[in-house]
Amino acid sequence: MATVGIVMGSDSDWPVMRPAAEALAEFGVEFEADVVSAHRMPQEMIEYGTRAAERGLKVIVAGAGGAAHLPGMLASVTPLPVIGVPVPLKYLDGMDSLLSIVQMPAGVPVATVAIGGARNAGLLAVRILAASDAELRARMERFQESLKEQAHAKGARLRAEAADLGA
Amino acid sequence: MATVGIVMGSDSDWPVMRPAAEALAEFGVEFEADVVSAHRMPQEMIEYGTRAAERGLKVIVAGAGGAAHLPGMLASVTPLPVIGVPVPLKYLDGMDSLLSIVQMPAGVPVATVAIGGARNAGLLAVRILAASDAELRARMERFQESLKEQAHAKGARLRAEAADLGA
Amino acid sequence: MATVGIVMGSDSDWPVMRPAAEALAEFGVEFEADVVSAHRMPQEMIEYGTRAAERGLKVIVAGAGGAAHLPGMLASVTPLPVIGVPVPLKYLDGMDSLLSIVQMPAGVPVATVAIGGARNAGLLAVRILAASDAELRARMERFQESLKEQAHAKGARLRAEAADLGA
Amino acid sequence: MATVGIVMGSDSDWPVMRPAAEALAEFGVEFEADVVSAHRMPQEMIEYGTRAAERGLKVIVAGAGGAAHLPGMLASVTPLPVIGVPVPLKYLDGMDSLLSIVQMPAGVPVATVAIGGARNAGLLAVRILAASDAELRARMERFQESLKEQAHAKGARLRAEAADLGA
Amino acid sequence: MATVGIVMGSDSDWPVMRPAAEALAEFGVEFEADVVSAHRMPQEMIEYGTRAAERGLKVIVAGAGGAAHLPGMLASVTPLPVIGVPVPLKYLDGMDSLLSIVQMPAGVPVATVAIGGARNAGLLAVRILAASDAELRARMERFQESLKEQAHAKGARLRAEAADLGA
Amino acid sequence: MATVGIVMGSDSDWPVMRPAAEALAEFGVEFEADVVSAHRMPQEMIEYGTRAAERGLKVIVAGAGGAAHLPGMLASVTPLPVIGVPVPLKYLDGMDSLLSIVQMPAGVPVATVAIGGARNAGLLAVRILAASDAELRARMERFQESLKEQAHAKGARLRAEAADLGA
Amino acid sequence: MATVGIVMGSDSDWPVMRPAAEALAEFGVEFEADVVSAHRMPQEMIEYGTRAAERGLKVIVAGAGGAAHLPGMLASVTPLPVIGVPVPLKYLDGMDSLLSIVQMPAGVPVATVAIGGARNAGLLAVRILAASDAELRARMERFQESLKEQAHAKGARLRAEAADLGA
Amino acid sequence: MATVGIVMGSDSDWPVMRPAAEALAEFGVEFEADVVSAHRMPQEMIEYGTRAAERGLKVIVAGAGGAAHLPGMLASVTPLPVIGVPVPLKYLDGMDSLLSIVQMPAGVPVATVAIGGARNAGLLAVRILAASDAELRARMERFQESLKEQAHAKGARLRAEAADLGA
Repeated sequence: MATVGIVMGSDSDWPVMRPAAEALAEFGVEFEADVVSAHRMPQEMIEYGTRAAERGLKVIVAGAGGAAHLPGMLASVTPLPVIGVPVPLKYLDGMDSLLSIVQMPAGVPVATVAIGGARNAGLLAVRILAASDAELRARMERFQESLKEQAHAKGARLRAEAADLGA
Repeated sequence: MATVGIVMGSDSDWPVMRPAAEALAEFGVEFEADVVSAHRMPQEMIEYGTRAAERGLKVIVAGAGGAAHLPGMLASVTPLPVIGVPVPLKYLDGMDSLLSIVQMPAGVPVATVAIGGARNAGLLAVRILAASDAELRARMERFQESLKEQAHAKGARLRAEAADLGA
Repeated sequence: MATVGIVMGSDSDWPVMRPAAEALAEFGVEFEADVVSAHRMPQEMIEYGTRAAERGLKVIVAGAGGAAHLPGMLASVTPLPVIGVPVPLKYLDGMDSLLSIVQMPAGVPVATVAIGGARNAGLLAVRILAASDAELRARMERFQESLKEQAHAKGARLRAEAADLGA
Repeated sequence: MATVGIVMGSDSDWPVMRPAAEALAEFGVEFEADVVSAHRMPQEMIEYGTRAAERGLKVIVAGAGGAAHLPGMLASVTPLPVIGVPVPLKYLDGMDSLLSIVQMPAGVPVATVAIGGARNAGLLAVRILAASDAELRARMERFQESLKEQAHAKGARLRAEAADLGA
Repeated sequence: MATVGIVMGSDSDWPVMRPAAEALAEFGVEFEADVVSAHRMPQEMIEYGTRAAERGLKVIVAGAGGAAHLPGMLASVTPLPVIGVPVPLKYLDGMDSLLSIVQMPAGVPVATVAIGGARNAGLLAVRILAASDAELRARMERFQESLKEQAHAKGARLRAEAADLGA
Repeated sequence: MATVGIVMGSDSDWPVMRPAAEALAEFGVEFEADVVSAHRMPQEMIEYGTRAAERGLKVIVAGAGGAAHLPGMLASVTPLPVIGVPVPLKYLDGMDSLLSIVQMPAGVPVATVAIGGARNAGLLAVRILAASDAELRARMERFQESLKEQAHAKGARLRAEAADLGA
Repeated sequence: MATVGIVMGSDSDWPVMRPAAEALAEFGVEFEADVVSAHRMPQEMIEYGTRAAERGLKVIVAGAGGAAHLPGMLASVTPLPVIGVPVPLKYLDGMDSLLSIVQMPAGVPVATVAIGGARNAGLLAVRILAASDAELRARMERFQESLKEQAHAKGARLRAEAADLGA
Repeated sequence: MATVGIVMGSDSDWPVMRPAAEALAEFGVEFEADVVSAHRMPQEMIEYGTRAAERGLKVIVAGAGGAAHLPGMLASVTPLPVIGVPVPLKYLDGMDSLLSIVQMPAGVPVATVAIGGARNAGLLAVRILAASDAELRARMERFQESLKEQAHAKGARLRAEAADLGA
């Protein structure tokens, strides 16, 4: 049964949002992905949010661009934590998406990640689930360890490259 | 019976939104004003939009600030024209409100006016109603004529003031 | 006889503005399209706006970029609702166009849509006409229904794609 | 034992951050509050983050302004979810704080809320804890219900005020 | 006979624009000042621009705020150089005014000065007139010399103040 | 003898600045073009500005990008009108160039045109020269007439294209 | 003999720049402070920069606002490190000052600090001098230690205040 | 032994940062280059900064993008001057990187250069070292002389090109 719902306004957002799903898959967290449009199917969107908790979801990841209303609207009808991903559109580099998602009024929070930062949305969902799941937290710690190892490997390559310049 | 509905997320927006009501009153257009919050009463908000046309409204004026979702969400559930007023909050001078309202995706338009531009929202509602009401249009033309006369009067005052500088 | 006039400063704006015309055509609304430049033919621009209502137009859609003066100038000489489309130019992603159009002073409103949002300008014109045309409003409602159906279809495709990731 | 740690770079941030503490107190969530400065006590900051989970914290709320490094640095040394609050400083209205917190690289997420949005940071922490605590989730649902009731009360007041204008 | 026309959309712009007049008065350049509103009296605005050269004006200084169309519209109907002053309004610190004035399309230039920079608009008008008036140019050179002397005097004061700190 | 000096910090700015030269050539105005870098040859830059008037120049057109100091520095050492062209660089779309040029302190004006707007810089130089040259002003009026004719021709093409859509 | 020169365009910048002087005084570094205006006394400004090294200065701290040219121009005529302080003016919150100072072209660097960040400019000058002065570096390390102690003291106060809320 | 440390969060930043290394190589300054990630190896990052001075480094050049914490964090653990290079990422043109680096709180300065301005970071490091190294300063002066010569050569080419237009 899915514990994380990944939703977006259109399947054209999938290339941006897919890394959220991949991150969850890497951690063995079950998820569902769907199109839930605030503007094209508002009633279904409200229903999706309203029923999310009873359906067993624990976190919702919502991506949207431009006048990005999906994350905030879902947060208004669910008690679950909602993670918002600002999807960059053709103009403004996602600044409109970011402000539309992050600047929520007091009472209804959205956990916002970077513009186009869907992978971090997935990792944040894992951290939230891991807050009450020691095994998952241990996996997150191993993941953080692996980031360090990759950085070390990159350092080795860089030192080699820089040596050509006299470093 | 009201033909224009003026709605906002909180009564704290009323000082910004009141000029929309005043403009309608000047033109003798009947209106209603209410708190309809996208984030605090989403179902009622959806219902307000869904029933607006059958209740006889012809235009909706919606003001919102920050991650301003009200105008766009109403536009998604009504076929009526929705006018959005970006309400400036404490930070960012209303730029977040403006982008959250104006940058709607294709399919669901919001007629956006200036930051804090509620008076123009009222006047735009009048123009929309006047598109099929010759008498109202004539009143709008007289109003535009009065703007010109006021500008002339201001010019006279300014020329007098500037004369002190040698103009 | 055209009820909507679509105007822009140059035929180079046509690729951006064409979706406004297409939306009107989809709804069976008659329109005209023309070059009316605020800066290159100001007197004709003033005349276009001044005569628009008597020629039978009910709505004007005006696209402009950069220091975008056309929508606001037309709004100053017609009592009709004017919809402004911020056309993005080579630099600034249309932010200059947006601010030049939306930030009109009290007295002269322009109904502004998203940067490059000409399709929504057409749809907003339909909504404005539909405010006093029950048949057109019904068509808008069917259109909104079709948006929902397309979103459902996209959801089905997305669920299939996401299944590959273990969703 | 505290389950939420609220930290900030200086006690001068306390007036902005205090609503996070108040929200937690309203929900009966135990918390601690402290000064943990990324720039003035970096080693202690690293240590605070590294030891947070073993000390029993489940969520960290971190406020910072300007080149706001505290939330992201803590997120890099803990597997817990970190909520970042952009604190607005004297210039730039908190835009620098927002970008410094939200634009984290892939691998290390920070759950960012609105500029000055500490109350929402507290509420988001509650939602995160409630994801695995049915009783706390029920309390969040009652809170959301109360938001609706307050909005209704505001609507009644607004309708009364607007009646003076002829609404 | 006035050689410089100073115009603005409303007499409320006069406190911002007055330094342009003062600068001209200091240089003994005759000017006129008037309210010429692009949006409230468009035909008169067009007429003002069209007749400016034949009336003996050599330079036009135009101030406007928000969707600031006056300088660009005047430039489109006169062959004279038009200097635009972005007047800051309540929100956005004049950034909307600046972009609406400076981002003119190829063919119709506006000489734009700083936000609120009316004194420099007056000085620029003097430089333009001085390009073909040796006596006026000499006065500008003396003025530039006086700026230097004032700066020297300020330096003396500053050195005295700084001495208290041990400088 | 050149009456307009076109200068820029590097020959890499020439593709952006060339339209200024072309505009002057179209009007038969003699000009010179040179590399005068504020940052790479500051003394020569100061000298260029200081000697410009005595060498017979009447207007200086200066293009610069990023921290664009050339136009303002020249304006500080010459009594001639200086026109600044913000050259867009790889990042920020020329917004840094624009602000570095237009936001001059009181006392030293720069006549700023649009980002990348070198053609308008040339045309503005013509207008400045034409302020005291009736023949040149007549040529500017004919040029403005030709802009109108081109716009009419574009309108004809657009109406033909739009006819395919049912306009 | 002064080793750091603190300069600014006007004595009105002194309240913003004074903390740079105070920081130097705290570290026992000798400095001079003066008005050196790029726009009002360009030749003296060039001379100041050109002679700085031979006069014994090792670092220049330059503050400027708006189209802020002083730091970059000094950097172009001296081989010394130049630290630029963006002074915020009435509009734009110092964003224009920041971009005018930091966005220098390749070849001529300016070490830019935060908007209004004069204290850090003084501290950066100390660090630069300390790079070849072990005693001064030890003093900087003690200063950094004192920052930590102050932060600890603030933490104690904050924990006491937060205890009232139940922390 | 290296006197300058060039560090960055990932080897993917190397193409942007490499010009810093090249500038140092041109001046014969020994340097090291490495991956030191604030977010992926925070403890090592702290250690790198803490030990930098004792290892003989005199200047640190740190490049980072987005929520760019590396330069500021290093500055908090070393008394050495730290030069920050804002690395532009896929969105926002490096504005997030710039603000995250330059807007440091009082007490901990970072010497910030232009977005993508790594070459200037290298040159600034040279100037800092040259503040106490007369020979290196002489080399910087020769370098500045060569910039002038290159500008002269570019001027010659430009004058030739412009001659084709009648200049």
